[in-house]
Amino acid sequence: MRVFVPFDARDPNTRLSPVLTETERHEFAESMLADVLSACRGAGLAPTVLATEPIDPGAPVRVDDRPLTPAVNEAIAATDETVAIVMADLALATPAALRRFVRADGDVVLAPGRVGGTNAVLAREPAFRVDYHGVSIHDHLRAARAVGASVREFDSFRLAVDVDEPPDLLEVLLHGEGTTAAWLGSAGFGVGVGPDGPELTQRDR
Amino acid sequence: MRVFVPFDARDPNTRLSPVLTETERHEFAESMLADVLSACRGAGLAPTVLATEPIDPGAPVRVDDRPLTPAVNEAIAATDETVAIVMADLALATPAALRRFVRADGDVVLAPGRVGGTNAVLAREPAFRVDYHGVSIHDHLRAARAVGASVREFDSFRLAVDVDEPPDLLEVLLHGEGTTAAWLGSAGFGVGVGPDGPELTQRDR
Repeated sequence: MRVFVPFDARDPNTRLSPVLTETERHEFAESMLADVLSACRGAGLAPTVLATEPIDPGAPVRVDDRPLTPAVNEAIAATDETVAIVMADLALATPAALRRFVRADGDVVLAPGRVGGTNAVLAREPAFRVDYHGVSIHDHLRAARAVGASVREFDSFRLAVDVDEPPDLLEVLLHGEGTTAAWLGSAGFGVGVGPDGPELTQRDR
Repeated sequence: MRVFVPFDARDPNTRLSPVLTETERHEFAESMLADVLSACRGAGLAPTVLATEPIDPGAPVRVDDRPLTPAVNEAIAATDETVAIVMADLALATPAALRRFVRADGDVVLAPGRVGGTNAVLAREPAFRVDYHGVSIHDHLRAARAVGASVREFDSFRLAVDVDEPPDLLEVLLHGEGTTAAWLGSAGFGVGVGPDGPELTQRDR
């Protein structure tokens, strides 16, 4: 099985700009990538980073400077093996969740993200292609059926939480156990309890 | 196994007040309850609604007008059987997710909700008690260990999405297949695709 983790090395996590500087966004994105790679290895997988430019994440890197969708489809087309695509911002991913994911039945297995996204794809059907625009989970369900593949939605909270907006940082602090949670702590983020429940706190910087 | 679905029949889903009238909030909450009860039955479970006042949801009702935590603990204390507590606002719950949940290993099994909540509890250990305040998932993990119970976090997107704020309605429309999604459609809500991806739309009312 080939496992690809797409990574935007140029301008990652732009929607975190309200709370992180550009340098911090790079550090934060690299922390999440490290956690995802570690979770993959813990699940017995050998991930390759599909990066927009050369980086050194401690794993093999395939450089493709095109946008996400064509870069992923080129990687899928280049192999006859089963392919897994795991997003680099799944900071809560665990070895257990990924182990369960790659063992799930189906020619195509899709792990939905919040707001209609697709956070992980397992394609045992070589004709399947991705399209990350719009409501991608619906498009991927349709695309799988269009090539005659059996398709399964994979039910995981750990793989559903992609971290791309400030409120998501709270989920990392509440559930993360890796590099990303530690990075957030060192950057001054914490968890407080407000009138509506837990909330993100930030030390003066 | 006893399965309880706590339900606030008096003033449900107050955080949806920005987008729903009081009458609509009641209808909406009852739709979600109907979907949760249906998912429970689809999983072979026989749910009892733990309601703050008498209602007629088409399932047995136990009335307890106290706040959530003491009402649930009283229900747990009143039986020697395994108890499952499933929140009434899990509009995406499926029979498959609940079947997997009640079969999970552990004296206490906890399905985390977003922002530190606990959306479903399975207690095979009779001494376990709930406390839904604060970061309840952490409190429940501690409480289980404190009574010597083995504890497992259950990994499910379907059980992690509790619907209590306007953005959550989008998840129901994207993934729901039951009464709640239909109710939202009839109330004028829909899914559009904006610059940042899918977004909730609302017909003029």
